[in-house]
Amino acid sequence: MIVKGMENPCPNVLPLNMNSSRKQETVCIFGTGDFGRSLGLKMLHCGYSVVFGSRNPQMSSQMPNGAEVLSYSEAARKSDIIIIAIHRDHYNFFIELTEVLHEKILVDVSNNLKINQYPESNAEYLAQLVPGAHVVKAFNTISAWALQSGALDASRQVFVCGNDIKAKQRVMDIVRTLGLTPLDQGSLVAAKEIENYPLQLFPMWRFPFYLSAALCIFFFFYSIIRDIIYPYVNKKEDNTFRLAISIPNRVFPITALVLLALVYLPGVLSAILQLYRGTKYRRFPDWLDHWMLCRKQLGLVALGFAFLHVIYTLVIPIRYYVRWRLRNITATQVIDKKDDPFITSTAWLSDSYVSLGILGFFLFLLLGITSLPSVSNMVNWREFRFVQSKLGYLTLILCTAHTLVYGGKRFLSPAALRWYLPSAYILALIIPCTVLVIKFILIMPCIDKTLTRIRQGWERNSKYSKSALFRKSDVSSKAECTWASEL
Amino acid sequence: MIVKGMENPCPNVLPLNMNSSRKQETVCIFGTGDFGRSLGLKMLHCGYSVVFGSRNPQMSSQMPNGAEVLSYSEAARKSDIIIIAIHRDHYNFFIELTEVLHEKILVDVSNNLKINQYPESNAEYLAQLVPGAHVVKAFNTISAWALQSGALDASRQVFVCGNDIKAKQRVMDIVRTLGLTPLDQGSLVAAKEIENYPLQLFPMWRFPFYLSAALCIFFFFYSIIRDIIYPYVNKKEDNTFRLAISIPNRVFPITALVLLALVYLPGVLSAILQLYRGTKYRRFPDWLDHWMLCRKQLGLVALGFAFLHVIYTLVIPIRYYVRWRLRNITATQVIDKKDDPFITSTAWLSDSYVSLGILGFFLFLLLGITSLPSVSNMVNWREFRFVQSKLGYLTLILCTAHTLVYGGKRFLSPAALRWYLPSAYILALIIPCTVLVIKFILIMPCIDKTLTRIRQGWERNSKYSKSALFRKSDVSSKAECTWASEL
Amino acid sequence: MIVKGMENPCPNVLPLNMNSSRKQETVCIFGTGDFGRSLGLKMLHCGYSVVFGSRNPQMSSQMPNGAEVLSYSEAARKSDIIIIAIHRDHYNFFIELTEVLHEKILVDVSNNLKINQYPESNAEYLAQLVPGAHVVKAFNTISAWALQSGALDASRQVFVCGNDIKAKQRVMDIVRTLGLTPLDQGSLVAAKEIENYPLQLFPMWRFPFYLSAALCIFFFFYSIIRDIIYPYVNKKEDNTFRLAISIPNRVFPITALVLLALVYLPGVLSAILQLYRGTKYRRFPDWLDHWMLCRKQLGLVALGFAFLHVIYTLVIPIRYYVRWRLRNITATQVIDKKDDPFITSTAWLSDSYVSLGILGFFLFLLLGITSLPSVSNMVNWREFRFVQSKLGYLTLILCTAHTLVYGGKRFLSPAALRWYLPSAYILALIIPCTVLVIKFILIMPCIDKTLTRIRQGWERNSKYSKSALFRKSDVSSKAECTWASEL
Repeated sequence: MIVKGMENPCPNVLPLNMNSSRKQETVCIFGTGDFGRSLGLKMLHCGYSVVFGSRNPQMSSQMPNGAEVLSYSEAARKSDIIIIAIHRDHYNFFIELTEVLHEKILVDVSNNLKINQYPESNAEYLAQLVPGAHVVKAFNTISAWALQSGALDASRQVFVCGNDIKAKQRVMDIVRTLGLTPLDQGSLVAAKEIENYPLQLFPMWRFPFYLSAALCIFFFFYSIIRDIIYPYVNKKEDNTFRLAISIPNRVFPITALVLLALVYLPGVLSAILQLYRGTKYRRFPDWLDHWMLCRKQLGLVALGFAFLHVIYTLVIPIRYYVRWRLRNITATQVIDKKDDPFITSTAWLSDSYVSLGILGFFLFLLLGITSLPSVSNMVNWREFRFVQSKLGYLTLILCTAHTLVYGGKRFLSPAALRWYLPSAYILALIIPCTVLVIKFILIMPCIDKTLTRIRQGWERNSKYSKSALFRKSDVSSKAECTWASEL
Repeated sequence: MIVKGMENPCPNVLPLNMNSSRKQETVCIFGTGDFGRSLGLKMLHCGYSVVFGSRNPQMSSQMPNGAEVLSYSEAARKSDIIIIAIHRDHYNFFIELTEVLHEKILVDVSNNLKINQYPESNAEYLAQLVPGAHVVKAFNTISAWALQSGALDASRQVFVCGNDIKAKQRVMDIVRTLGLTPLDQGSLVAAKEIENYPLQLFPMWRFPFYLSAALCIFFFFYSIIRDIIYPYVNKKEDNTFRLAISIPNRVFPITALVLLALVYLPGVLSAILQLYRGTKYRRFPDWLDHWMLCRKQLGLVALGFAFLHVIYTLVIPIRYYVRWRLRNITATQVIDKKDDPFITSTAWLSDSYVSLGILGFFLFLLLGITSLPSVSNMVNWREFRFVQSKLGYLTLILCTAHTLVYGGKRFLSPAALRWYLPSAYILALIIPCTVLVIKFILIMPCIDKTLTRIRQGWERNSKYSKSALFRKSDVSSKAECTWASEL
Repeated sequence: MIVKGMENPCPNVLPLNMNSSRKQETVCIFGTGDFGRSLGLKMLHCGYSVVFGSRNPQMSSQMPNGAEVLSYSEAARKSDIIIIAIHRDHYNFFIELTEVLHEKILVDVSNNLKINQYPESNAEYLAQLVPGAHVVKAFNTISAWALQSGALDASRQVFVCGNDIKAKQRVMDIVRTLGLTPLDQGSLVAAKEIENYPLQLFPMWRFPFYLSAALCIFFFFYSIIRDIIYPYVNKKEDNTFRLAISIPNRVFPITALVLLALVYLPGVLSAILQLYRGTKYRRFPDWLDHWMLCRKQLGLVALGFAFLHVIYTLVIPIRYYVRWRLRNITATQVIDKKDDPFITSTAWLSDSYVSLGILGFFLFLLLGITSLPSVSNMVNWREFRFVQSKLGYLTLILCTAHTLVYGGKRFLSPAALRWYLPSAYILALIIPCTVLVIKFILIMPCIDKTLTRIRQGWERNSKYSKSALFRKSDVSSKAECTWASEL
């Protein structure tokens, strides 16, 4: 869709040439509320002639200049396209207008206050009330405020659906003339979905958001106890300045690693479930289904935390505290004439821990980029599986290894315990290591073979399952096979 | 659209099977210029039979092998699809061909030299000249060079529009066979927009670009005066090496902050204007409209500068100058046996300034990602407002606080003045602080309530505005209410 | 397309209201293999009534609850939409069913095992076998596993094509009801491409991947010889810890620079070829064509290496080795009471090398962002050329200059040779410098003019090429001119 040319409202239409190039089309709008008036004003600007239909035409002042206000039936007679900017509760008066509205195009722009408020969509309800008319659903995703201000920064997409192809086509032309992008969503069956659309607020992001908030808060207080309260109680040190960088830079990587592991946990659980049940033809429990559906969002939240960790780590040498400590270590070394030999094993540990982290972050970023809608739409199932599964597990392995090597020599040493609390990163390793161990077991040939067969439709308790019949007619068994082994 | 499969030119067509699977379709091309020849060559490669129509068929040498060259009327008789690769100025000869072209599909591929050159689009003009033909606009966004070289890295999209659905469908099938992606843009009304499209060069990016260039240049010279000329004049210090990193790293964050504030300034101004006028049904002045339309671009330019600031800051410890200074400070400290106590308040200031900057940059990056077309198309108005308004103001607050804390104890101290010039970052804070203060006033309950009512369509000077009539029939008042409060 | 609303499988359909709002449509599925059963189960969940057609209806146990299993002809009579989930090899039995299938909609969901396995697509073959039916290709890009598990993270896009518009429309409505996104791909000609689509695995990425792997391996071993083996042999130093960070951070920038130069090399070669041949109407050799087609992928791989180089560089001051060395240098300086004067020229070199690198990386990142499909679809040819050509060469110049200045005073000094091997970065500069020099020659006015004329369609050996005839009818000569000069 030509998006750029549409930055200007109705860009090509100049009052002068407009009249010459097409005869001024008349559009009728039922309803003089805010949306009706805003849409009318916009249409007037774009060269349409607008007639409003109202219950009390005399009382409707403040209408846009140039628009007529008539009674419903008079207004309807003036045009064959009627935009219904009226609440669904008031639709019953259409029954009286059935005759006037015969063969007219009715554009339902209504929205509800909550998702699935009525059993059928408003547009389908309208189509039932006025069976002789061609009902088209459109414009409900556009706000009156946006029409008014011209500030259509967000989606200019207008979802359009309807059973009559010609009627839909005419409405789509109007949408285009107003400088918006029509998207054909098919027959009126799609109306329900279109009506629910503008009411959502990031439905798939809620679980990842609350989960990561909970993890952050837990590890934040855990770190405060170990790094601020413990030194204060034991050595009267004031470490509160660590709240700004040191503690976030401990909490963020931990949250990222745990969330990343939680992306791969449901896949592992579902494999165990399928192995246990011996079939893939039974639904997973609801919580597992929901979890699997928001893996992408979980992964992206994890990526956000990983990104913060990277930047917080890179600013370390700029910090006053770090510079002050480096100065003092050097000064002490010089004054005490201590020897400072180079320890190769420390250099190895320090460098490989950093390197693993960088490579893990890089692959993580690649995963994030491939989950951008425009990128993931360009890859097919085989490629998507390859990226999300092979690269995904590699990322998890690298990030877990990064954390393990970070621990290095201190790992599980009793000296690291403070008030019997282990370092936070040790807690962070529990879920990733569990996922990796189970995965490792699942890809062992004997288990993997059974799982692959189950995922190709084989069932443990079926007498026919091994017959040639199924396998021959299985259209996509080969491809399935590849996918399954990639999971 | 299947984009990958199209990397190869006409990938599925092999000379052998082509003949069997469909009878070689003949396409006629009027015009033997570069575009006509390139398109003809491409069509020959993809299995079409091509006939050229020319004014002087005898003189047209150098035509692709396998293509016939005939007179216009003879060529037209050979095919029912005729591609018009001729300049609009020469269209008048079509009048003689009206009979031959009756019921034919004419594909207008022409472009103009400047935007809105003629009152109506070339395709509509052609349709007026040959009323019996089905005119379809297509291929004008593709370059002859790209057709020739096969290097279609850019958009493979071919915008198609036309009044006859069947004619359009046939042209779209040809587009697809050539390995391009047809996009149905509706009826011939869209032709004007499609013709303007290839002539644009980032129209919405110009204002942000010039504005940021002006800001950069101003602050660049301001910093040169304070940081290079002043020390040279007063202490004969040669600080020119600061031109490479130190000064850019002062100019870029300032430009980023000012531009970010300018993204939110027009929203604040329009709210004041609506409050003053007491209605939302009057257009904003043109400059404000234009400003509001390029807010996204302003924000993205600001993000670019913020990104540069981040990298320039992170390389600080690698720089020779910084390492040299650190060495010397430590050396002096040791030699003079000075005490270097740890100052907690400095650690707090240093860490929280960095931390605020990181969080601000992170949110800024999120805003940037949500403005990618494929992402913003996936969110509805409610979600878009949430991200762009709530997160946007949070970003502005964090970045302003980052700059304020950076100033820290030196803020407004007279010692920082050089030749009566304050530090550059103090100038940078003027606009952001102004925007935040006005915004703070606007969200106070009493003012917010009035503003919300105005944005729902209420008008101060209207006698009917409070009547139940309007509110009942306002389809989207609830949703509007939420949006308004989020602004 | 409304993507979000589709996260839940068939979101709007509740068993209760479904029956009321539309009469339960019956769909017939031929084939009881895995894909057939999975699709049938999904359709039952979404409110369809499903009838399976099978060769041995009695033997087909394990069918989804609620689905009937009948013989092919009986099943076909129950519905006017029949989904063919059978291997192409078994299609011949359709000949017996021609009568029953008359005027029915046959949905071909089949896939093949390799690309271009048969001369014509399965769907076209089916259409030939049953000429009375309306064949529609659909669902082949969706996996049975995905239908089953609901885990449609990847593309929900279902490519649909078919010759009968009404039949296609009905299939698209079914696709939508199942919670997937139908994409109309036109007539049945598109079936071949749709069938090849799911079999690809990053076809355009293979050459860039292998090339970059080869470069990496070569420079890796080259650096090991110079930086690890040489010091070990000559001074018995154990430098193996450099394998983790120092050597990758030498290999990655070199690979990035060489790959970036290889993006621009084919453009330069093709210009030389066109100048030599004196025409643009001859095809390039295949290797050059292929190279030009994967320039985008080459560039993105280069960007990945550049990104790794940036992060590996930024972590330098955190490394144990670097800190240890800084401490020791300072300590030595103090103990030996050496003077450490500030060298302005070194500061200049160090700062400008870093600054050039940052700016180069920033432009490189911009190039990467504009190659995202959703972004590149929004820009027209003129804008795309501007970004990819002007900005691209600027990036190459900056990155080459970054490497040249990095060499600084050591550049080509014989002291840098180890075992007669020059530093790796000197090898890396060969291709970029060659490309830039040739490009510089090509844009010299005399050569550029000839090249531009050739690209506008002028041919050196054509007698008519200078006649007004061509130029007048050249539709896009002006635009071409601009593009050419931008290359």
